[in-house]
Amino acid sequence: MAKTAVIAFGGNALLRSGQRGTYEEQIANVQSTCESIIGMVEQGYNIIIGHGNGPQVGNVMLQHEIASRVTDVLAMPLDFCVSETQGSIGYLIEQGMRNVLHRHHIQRNVVGVITQVTVDGNDDLFQNPTKPVGPYYKQKEMNAILADRPGIPFKEDPKGNGWRRVVASPKPLEVLNVDVIEALAKAGNIVITVGGGGIPVVRTAEGEYKGVEAVIDKDLASALTAIAVKADEFYILTDVPKVYINFRKPGEKALDVLTVAEAEQYLEEKQFAEGSMAPKIRAAIQFVKNGGKECIITEAGQLNNPQCGTRIVK
Amino acid sequence: MAKTAVIAFGGNALLRSGQRGTYEEQIANVQSTCESIIGMVEQGYNIIIGHGNGPQVGNVMLQHEIASRVTDVLAMPLDFCVSETQGSIGYLIEQGMRNVLHRHHIQRNVVGVITQVTVDGNDDLFQNPTKPVGPYYKQKEMNAILADRPGIPFKEDPKGNGWRRVVASPKPLEVLNVDVIEALAKAGNIVITVGGGGIPVVRTAEGEYKGVEAVIDKDLASALTAIAVKADEFYILTDVPKVYINFRKPGEKALDVLTVAEAEQYLEEKQFAEGSMAPKIRAAIQFVKNGGKECIITEAGQLNNPQCGTRIVK
Repeated sequence: MAKTAVIAFGGNALLRSGQRGTYEEQIANVQSTCESIIGMVEQGYNIIIGHGNGPQVGNVMLQHEIASRVTDVLAMPLDFCVSETQGSIGYLIEQGMRNVLHRHHIQRNVVGVITQVTVDGNDDLFQNPTKPVGPYYKQKEMNAILADRPGIPFKEDPKGNGWRRVVASPKPLEVLNVDVIEALAKAGNIVITVGGGGIPVVRTAEGEYKGVEAVIDKDLASALTAIAVKADEFYILTDVPKVYINFRKPGEKALDVLTVAEAEQYLEEKQFAEGSMAPKIRAAIQFVKNGGKECIITEAGQLNNPQCGTRIVK
Repeated sequence: MAKTAVIAFGGNALLRSGQRGTYEEQIANVQSTCESIIGMVEQGYNIIIGHGNGPQVGNVMLQHEIASRVTDVLAMPLDFCVSETQGSIGYLIEQGMRNVLHRHHIQRNVVGVITQVTVDGNDDLFQNPTKPVGPYYKQKEMNAILADRPGIPFKEDPKGNGWRRVVASPKPLEVLNVDVIEALAKAGNIVITVGGGGIPVVRTAEGEYKGVEAVIDKDLASALTAIAVKADEFYILTDVPKVYINFRKPGEKALDVLTVAEAEQYLEEKQFAEGSMAPKIRAAIQFVKNGGKECIITEAGQLNNPQCGTRIVK
């Protein structure tokens, strides 16, 4: 029986620093990322792709904000902005994947699913939002926004770039439609889901769904998906080939294999940067602790190398 | 065996004229539209929902345009803008439908699928684009855009509101993933697809997919879906209860039943307004001529009335 892999695409699947972010650049970037998983496609894996939306949702928030200042088009909350990025990124990945498959003469179908992910409205993280989202503002611009929407939290950038909105990044609880996603993937479709970590929603006391101002970590949402579909392997693509200890410091060391116990120890020693490698390590631990065999953290270009990346195992 | 219905939601499913378009208004509107199809859900229909995006894609284009003037965030082409609206509208319909089902104590699942629709790059309509999209511009603003992107077509609004971009609205040829959509619907999922008529793409000479600057009529795309899934019934929801001849003129008459021959005759007599009822009639004819039993054009609030709307039949 075919193995099932969940692959979390990094933020640079579409938009890369040092580029202007043109449509043509995004098309080229997404095709090169899709090209990197073609070896797994050829091996017959069932494949589910999760993806981030950091730069994209920032752009959407900026577009909403600026247009709302000079037109009647209102700025929408974060769940709505995330849903827009699921549409655009899902589209570009689906199209890129279809074209790469076509070039390799492979008949596989690709499906993008709009995906809500539930969080707990009482998650402690809502009390102390820390995840920066969207554009940097000058103090005057921030005050104008606060006049409109009092109380929404901002934090000053320590590097002096100005102020940014901060939101909670609560723990994902349930991926809606995960059964559908599993069935589609196990029928051979390459499925794109949990874009940007999923559209963040809570269940109200009445049992209804309601969007919330939050962003969900895409690696944690992908891990939750991998656990739910009983994936054999979980890949987290990033911009370094392996996980390092003493990263960019004396004694830097690339890791081939990392046990859960070692990973937890290193997390405690703050070996991994928050907002970067640390959440990936936590997602890997979550997968392996919940029945997953191994999680591989690596860069896209390495995937065709069987010795690639760092393997997090029990 | 359960009957299958394709239902095309009107543009007013979310945004309605006379409202500001707040998030709360959109949530309330979408729930009332979803509420209107609950009778069909209770009768056990398999249901596929198509939807428009006229006002939404206009808003997205405006947001892109304005942000691109004052920031580094570039304006993206129309296929990208349509894909953003598929994400946001698909999300809101899925959530609204889930909440309405929950209130009615009905266990049915809802899935939103990001959907590309192919058109022919050599479609004559690309030579003479006529479909107005996006915001109205003053002449000076239009000239600024043309300096950046020379040659993109504009038309002056006959009512004096300024200039608007015009794009082609080519005939939809193929709904990608329509087999998946059919299987999901026939397994009992309520499926949301062909948002805004689908993301417009062409197949290149090499057989690859590529986005194009166009918008696809959502009723024609929904008709194509209805034909492909062999739907028993095709519903087009609009803001009038029936189709009329001599609409808002002496001799106005609501039609209960309309044969294809009559419909074609009335189209020739220009009884139906272009950009409004005429494309719906064409979509209805297309469905019935290609194996569909009947197409019902009506307003959402009428659906629970068995005598509702105008039935277009062979």
